[in-house]
Amino acid sequence: MTEFNSVTIIKKANIYFDGKVTSRAVIFPDGSRKTLGIMLPGEYEFGTEAEELMEIMAGELEVSLPQEEGWRTVKGGESFKVPANAKFGLKVIEVTDYCCSYFA
Amino acid sequence: MTEFNSVTIIKKANIYFDGKVTSRAVIFPDGSRKTLGIMLPGEYEFGTEAEELMEIMAGELEVSLPQEEGWRTVKGGESFKVPANAKFGLKVIEVTDYCCSYFA
Repeated sequence: MTEFNSVTIIKKANIYFDGKVTSRAVIFPDGSRKTLGIMLPGEYEFGTEAEELMEIMAGELEVSLPQEEGWRTVKGGESFKVPANAKFGLKVIEVTDYCCSYFA
Repeated sequence: MTEFNSVTIIKKANIYFDGKVTSRAVIFPDGSRKTLGIMLPGEYEFGTEAEELMEIMAGELEVSLPQEEGWRTVKGGESFKVPANAKFGLKVIEVTDYCCSYFA
């Protein structure tokens, strides 16, 4: 799926880490929500509320997930899941374009 | 208008200047197009094809426009127009969240 149709997009961006991580929210007709975002190289820690699916559309990063030991490399075309109410670490190696889906 | 409804969004981002400038395209039911983007601090030169309206939603920059002499400061809540087939310069001072409209 290269585009999302009949959606609502929130105009204003979410800006984190001095703009090195930014995203915009997309709301679907069924009320579900995704964010489309960009991460520049750097190290970040994030926390989840809902379970998340992170699809990496372009770029390269390493992720440290609560359900895995150590760091795993993830590249464009790959994805990973993060449980609800969890912390996870990212080391972004190359500018990363992502789509994050949230599960209730 | 804080959100755009019933639109198509292209999933993949446009990435320029090593990710310091990124945007995503939004297509409206009438076929018109806007981009929502982020610019990190730095100096950039852009070129237009169609006439553009740049709405600065947050941030601060200076712009050098072909129809004006010198540099003008533009802050969140302000906007500027760029003619078709023109070059313009930007000095982004603070992380800038923008919406760009294109006129046929």
